[in-house]
Amino acid sequence: MAEFALIDLIRDRCALSRADVRVGIGDDAAIVAMPAGHELAIATDTLVAGVHFPPGTRARDLGWKALAVNLSDLAAMGATPAWALLALTLPDADRGFVEEFAGGFAELAALHGVALVGGDTTRGPLAVTVTVHGFVPPGGALRRDGAGVGDQVFVTGTLGDAAAALRCLDRRDARAAALFEAPADTRERLRERLDRPQPRVAAGNALRGFASACIDVSDGLLADLGHVAAGSGVGIAIEAARLPASPALLTLFDAGERLALQAAGGDDYELAFCVPDVHVAGMQRDLARVGGGATRIGRVVAGEGVRLLDGEGCAIALAHAGWDHFA
Amino acid sequence: MAEFALIDLIRDRCALSRADVRVGIGDDAAIVAMPAGHELAIATDTLVAGVHFPPGTRARDLGWKALAVNLSDLAAMGATPAWALLALTLPDADRGFVEEFAGGFAELAALHGVALVGGDTTRGPLAVTVTVHGFVPPGGALRRDGAGVGDQVFVTGTLGDAAAALRCLDRRDARAAALFEAPADTRERLRERLDRPQPRVAAGNALRGFASACIDVSDGLLADLGHVAAGSGVGIAIEAARLPASPALLTLFDAGERLALQAAGGDDYELAFCVPDVHVAGMQRDLARVGGGATRIGRVVAGEGVRLLDGEGCAIALAHAGWDHFA
Repeated sequence: MAEFALIDLIRDRCALSRADVRVGIGDDAAIVAMPAGHELAIATDTLVAGVHFPPGTRARDLGWKALAVNLSDLAAMGATPAWALLALTLPDADRGFVEEFAGGFAELAALHGVALVGGDTTRGPLAVTVTVHGFVPPGGALRRDGAGVGDQVFVTGTLGDAAAALRCLDRRDARAAALFEAPADTRERLRERLDRPQPRVAAGNALRGFASACIDVSDGLLADLGHVAAGSGVGIAIEAARLPASPALLTLFDAGERLALQAAGGDDYELAFCVPDVHVAGMQRDLARVGGGATRIGRVVAGEGVRLLDGEGCAIALAHAGWDHFA
Repeated sequence: MAEFALIDLIRDRCALSRADVRVGIGDDAAIVAMPAGHELAIATDTLVAGVHFPPGTRARDLGWKALAVNLSDLAAMGATPAWALLALTLPDADRGFVEEFAGGFAELAALHGVALVGGDTTRGPLAVTVTVHGFVPPGGALRRDGAGVGDQVFVTGTLGDAAAALRCLDRRDARAAALFEAPADTRERLRERLDRPQPRVAAGNALRGFASACIDVSDGLLADLGHVAAGSGVGIAIEAARLPASPALLTLFDAGERLALQAAGGDDYELAFCVPDVHVAGMQRDLARVGGGATRIGRVVAGEGVRLLDGEGCAIALAHAGWDHFA
């Protein structure tokens, strides 16, 4: 299959028209029109085979996830997604793979009204780089550097499921064999969290005006909150017992294992954010309005760094603090 | 070296402030402000080691080229570059490599006033995806689909040098040994065209209002003009004898070899474009004003496809018509 046939295939699968797209896929660049009175949020993320997704990940899930991790970055800024570009590197021009990949990408894109406006297909080791664009009111973006001492810290959804699913796949892990004995639908639910993360776009939008800082949990809660702490010049104290867990996580893991997955696992794509006391009620009301919710997990404190505390307020040390590509 | 140290290093090397960048590198997404009364051009291109650049390419040149091929896409739309994102996948966190890479990227970015506003660093087989953004007046973008029968066809600069440099590197090529006997500065000049392409941004801007269609020559002149012909529903007739060649190309290759490199070599990053007769004088004047020029190489004709013609107007067949990643 030739390169241009691949591009046509992707374009056909991802057809979604937006009035603000003047020139879409098929020219040297896309041409789009910004709505007046907005700023533009731009994010890019790469998924590399064997690094960001395990061997055997379905092409359809990969297409979904490549867009999802990027929309999650827009969600963390409180932006509304609009346009995406897809740079897809493939070892060979496998029509079936590309059809499935584009199908998964298009499925999520349609949910968020995102138009695929351009990209590049190249031959090489399997990797995907997606770039996404969204709108945010001037000065309204949620940043990492606005957390204030005393703010409450929240997280959407539950933590640790994706990391648990990865662990179930690790054949070198003695526990993995036992996990394989878990009911299929329980494992399936974890795997769904790994393969099909739901970017919290509506939640991110609802947080604007309330949250003082926000980040998406991709590298692990503690590592990501570490960026908020460093960016804001504050410390963050997290109460381990408050970290939200799914029923599947509660069933399959003991408290110690669970905590490691929740606090350092990564790939959750939930939003972690800080809210001054005065805005907590408004935030909760607006989050509920978009069908979401958040769990209070800690406080912003004076100092620096992120501490994980037990029921007595003593710091808990984890063996592995978060994801670093080059660690 | 840790991932975040790498990001800091890239940010430090590529520091260039623009008033329209509200949030730069270091948050979940960049936040930028569009100037009123413009449309946004967005392009993305990936370079994969061993596919888009030969082994031994210097990191500094790779940084330059990764941005250059993208700015070339903006140039082909007549857009003025503004912001870039860099997704860099590296086998290991080699500080020296990243310093050099960022240095080359920053060098070209500074020439065009481009701010690096975001990106991603990941571990994996060496590859670079850059996404660039530029401004263009509403409706003013140069497209591939506007060529009209009778328009003259032009190309900036000279063709075939980059492909010639690649050929000099091919040790399986019997001619390469002879080419290696060429004077060092001649070979150096060809290599410069391969490693440090000059995106024709000023030329692209000058063509707005004159050119009916435009494309950058990345896959090979005939292949790229083929997109213009297909997009515009016309044919294009190119006179082989008119294709511009550098002194180095004229010195090292006979007419047959030269023609293959010029017509199908690729990696030139010149602009090929069509201009109605009535606009030719204006185009030439405005191109000269920005210190550029273009060579007339053919005509848009009724029909379809691109034909390469000899002095008698007979079609010349080339063995290899252009670059297809999956051919």
